Amino acid sequence: MEVMSGKNNSFCLNNGDVVEKIKRLGRLTCRKIWKVGKEDKRRVIHSLKVGISLSLVSLLYLMEPLFKGIGENAIWAVMTVVVVLEFTTGATLYKGLNRGLGTLLAGLLAFLIERIANESGHIFHAAFIGTAVFLVGAVTTYMRFFSHIKKNYDYGVVIFLLTFNLITVSSYRVDSVLKIAHERFYTIAIGCGICLLMSLFIFPIWSGEDLHLSTVAKFEGLAKSIEVCINEYFSDGIINQQEEKVRNYSMEMEDPIYKGYKAVLDSKSSDETLALYASWEPRYLRSCSWQQYVKLGTVLRHFGYTIVALHGCLQTEIKTPQSVRVLFKDPCNRLAREMTKTLKELGDSIRNRRKYCPEIPSNHVHEALQDLIDVLKSQPRLFLSTNSNTNILLALATLATRQKSGKDFLLSLPSVNNDDPARLGLSHVLKEGDKKILRPTLSKNGITSLEFLEALPFAAFASLLVETVARLDLVIEQVVELGKVAQFKEFSHDDVVINVSCDNNPRVESEFPSSHTAAD
Amino acid sequence: MEVMSGKNNSFCLNNGDVVEKIKRLGRLTCRKIWKVGKEDKRRVIHSLKVGISLSLVSLLYLMEPLFKGIGENAIWAVMTVVVVLEFTTGATLYKGLNRGLGTLLAGLLAFLIERIANESGHIFHAAFIGTAVFLVGAVTTYMRFFSHIKKNYDYGVVIFLLTFNLITVSSYRVDSVLKIAHERFYTIAIGCGICLLMSLFIFPIWSGEDLHLSTVAKFEGLAKSIEVCINEYFSDGIINQQEEKVRNYSMEMEDPIYKGYKAVLDSKSSDETLALYASWEPRYLRSCSWQQYVKLGTVLRHFGYTIVALHGCLQTEIKTPQSVRVLFKDPCNRLAREMTKTLKELGDSIRNRRKYCPEIPSNHVHEALQDLIDVLKSQPRLFLSTNSNTNILLALATLATRQKSGKDFLLSLPSVNNDDPARLGLSHVLKEGDKKILRPTLSKNGITSLEFLEALPFAAFASLLVETVARLDLVIEQVVELGKVAQFKEFSHDDVVINVSCDNNPRVESEFPSSHTAAD
Repeated sequence: MEVMSGKNNSFCLNNGDVVEKIKRLGRLTCRKIWKVGKEDKRRVIHSLKVGISLSLVSLLYLMEPLFKGIGENAIWAVMTVVVVLEFTTGATLYKGLNRGLGTLLAGLLAFLIERIANESGHIFHAAFIGTAVFLVGAVTTYMRFFSHIKKNYDYGVVIFLLTFNLITVSSYRVDSVLKIAHERFYTIAIGCGICLLMSLFIFPIWSGEDLHLSTVAKFEGLAKSIEVCINEYFSDGIINQQEEKVRNYSMEMEDPIYKGYKAVLDSKSSDETLALYASWEPRYLRSCSWQQYVKLGTVLRHFGYTIVALHGCLQTEIKTPQSVRVLFKDPCNRLAREMTKTLKELGDSIRNRRKYCPEIPSNHVHEALQDLIDVLKSQPRLFLSTNSNTNILLALATLATRQKSGKDFLLSLPSVNNDDPARLGLSHVLKEGDKKILRPTLSKNGITSLEFLEALPFAAFASLLVETVARLDLVIEQVVELGKVAQFKEFSHDDVVINVSCDNNPRVESEFPSSHTAAD
Repeated sequence: MEVMSGKNNSFCLNNGDVVEKIKRLGRLTCRKIWKVGKEDKRRVIHSLKVGISLSLVSLLYLMEPLFKGIGENAIWAVMTVVVVLEFTTGATLYKGLNRGLGTLLAGLLAFLIERIANESGHIFHAAFIGTAVFLVGAVTTYMRFFSHIKKNYDYGVVIFLLTFNLITVSSYRVDSVLKIAHERFYTIAIGCGICLLMSLFIFPIWSGEDLHLSTVAKFEGLAKSIEVCINEYFSDGIINQQEEKVRNYSMEMEDPIYKGYKAVLDSKSSDETLALYASWEPRYLRSCSWQQYVKLGTVLRHFGYTIVALHGCLQTEIKTPQSVRVLFKDPCNRLAREMTKTLKELGDSIRNRRKYCPEIPSNHVHEALQDLIDVLKSQPRLFLSTNSNTNILLALATLATRQKSGKDFLLSLPSVNNDDPARLGLSHVLKEGDKKILRPTLSKNGITSLEFLEALPFAAFASLLVETVARLDLVIEQVVELGKVAQFKEFSHDDVVINVSCDNNPRVESEFPSSHTAAD
């Protein structure tokens, strides 16, 4: 529209448009820049650290007295800083030490090769170097496929190959190649030194700390997920909204339940990377606790999968009627509350680097589970059959009950479904008068009838809750193990009245009724 | 023992021991080396490619006529090959193009800075360079935290910083720095050229192909998991073995079910990396199908979580009696068979790059689901109550039935549990004679009774199966979408008798009975 409004005008407007667009883009960029820094202030610190390190190392080249001592190779120190200085101390150490080791080994091998090559003539020398380059290149690259080397020394192997080739190939034309290599090693060491200084002593950022905090965050996310999940399951309104969500898959991303467990599900690679870097950090070298964090991460992921399934129960098409769900609301709610509490306590104990005692009185998960099981047990036996005669049977039961016990047992007959032969059979048995009395009565502690199919989703939900408790026990086990391995401080009994021992942690088996098959 | 057997002897034995150990170590290493190559033969090819490329590029330095043309900077071509030549073509292109772009931009910026710096005096020049190094270093490092840059151009940014520093700092002492930069750019281009040649035309290894095949493998793994899962659930012997597994968590790793879905669960980061590299490969640039593979991977992961939950059903402590499970064995088996078949067909259609038609007659999943739902529906209504009077009610039902219908309905009463007040109440109602007749009878199409608690695990299992079908539909949706996006060849009707249209894909809703709440 604006372009069409007149030739003179259109230019101005277009100009204005462009200015407006640039302004908007500028504002968006500024907001983005601000956001990245606000999300994690250490990013700003790290950027400044890199800038300072580079300036410092440039001084080796820029300042007259320093340059005279070191010479042109000072430029290698700059290069080292760019490549080695990473966000966390662990990553910097990993790269720095790998680089150092790789360079050293490559130098030694190159020296050996040169000694052998020097014995021969000029042409043979070239052929020898070519062959060595081919062999070392192929073998080194093949070595990178070994999972152990790939995981721990990949960068070192690349640097080894790089340095080896640089020295070996150069040695063909430059006589003083070993002197150069020696000087370079010296400057690379200065570069590495500055990097280590910067990352170890000036606002150090520890991978181990990141791993630690991300583990704590996982516990909080899972606790939140369970909380919201149970609330939504027992409140009908939100469930209807949920129904729409299953259709729009991408919407799931905004779900608070999904947000809670999302970080847990895909944590494998980030956990392993952080643990790898943490394994190079001096404070974690001793305890090897980073391995335990990875193990805990695995167990937490498996815990998370059950929460995903629980979440799935909210989204199924067949719903257990709200009236039935309400019967189990209290024990389910209590169990979820206890689990949430336990998860938060576990997270807190890790955050405070305090051992977790699985038998502290505040851990009522198994009591809550027993409660739920008791409520489930208090339900009558189910009658399953392969034919549909049982419908008549149950109708007869209601009739018999009414006749024998009068108004003691009040129940609602399901609305008659005309195409069900079993029900039609029933209406022959029941007299008109009986029907009238049976129909409209349902007392407060009455009996709800529902189809087996309708009971399924709740049964799945309850079963998954029980499963979650079993998984939680595995999580507790690993947290206790972590406390031992990482030498967390002892659990304090300050806020606990009864003194309990922490020797054995309860397993879910003891709480479960033993399985037994029906008599057949 | 051997060391203790005598001083003279011990040395010989120790010596023998060491030789034996070295031999064993050698054998182990050889086996390991063989295994790494056997797992993926392309590893050997890639290693040879790296060796050949390095030898080729070394010739630039080693051969007299070539060296005269290029000069000492030929060494930079060697360096480039070491750093850029990666396993897959996509990764090589990603690194090569990032390196090229980074170097070019850094050269331009360095040139600009040098022009400004040259206007000033010597001291000011150094200060100016120092400031520029600091600013560019900090800003560039900060840019690496932007997720988009981190994902697509991280390597390029590092190279940019590296090159910028090399040129800017060197320019302080070397006058002909731009000439050097120009020469280096030239040799780096040669190195990149050799890398691209090697990875594009000589046994190319495509990331897109890897992503494609890993997706196919995921389908096969999931199909296998479902198959084994159902078989184990309905065969009691193996289930007892399974019980032990929950105690020994690490054992789970050997489980065929776990092995099937393991690759799916933790696929996020590897999928994304492969997709990133694939996005640089010319054959995938046009269709952007790699994004669709990542989406499909997400949906498959969510499908996998349900399988994990299904797997969990095999490991719960409370078991639904085998006699009850048998009732539902056939429909469950059929549903699992159909799902397995569909998964395999989906995998096959992707492997053959053929569009998947969700309405082909061989897709009987929804029929099988309807079957299972029908069987579940044919079960009588459940009576749930908050008091335990219903036990009496049901007992009365059996009594009434017996009285009215004689031997038409044969049923087994559950063994009397003495501490159950409801049951005790029942024994007052039942006369001695009735009990005797009721007790021992169970006909083939008889009725099995079980506690609600015992029914839970099967209900969860069935419910999760139904959930799996819903998730499968989401998977099918994404596979159909993939067929469109990646322009797979049309679905061929050769092996299909009836001609069906592929326009709309069925969703699970239509197959599900509408949810309705019990009358209350």
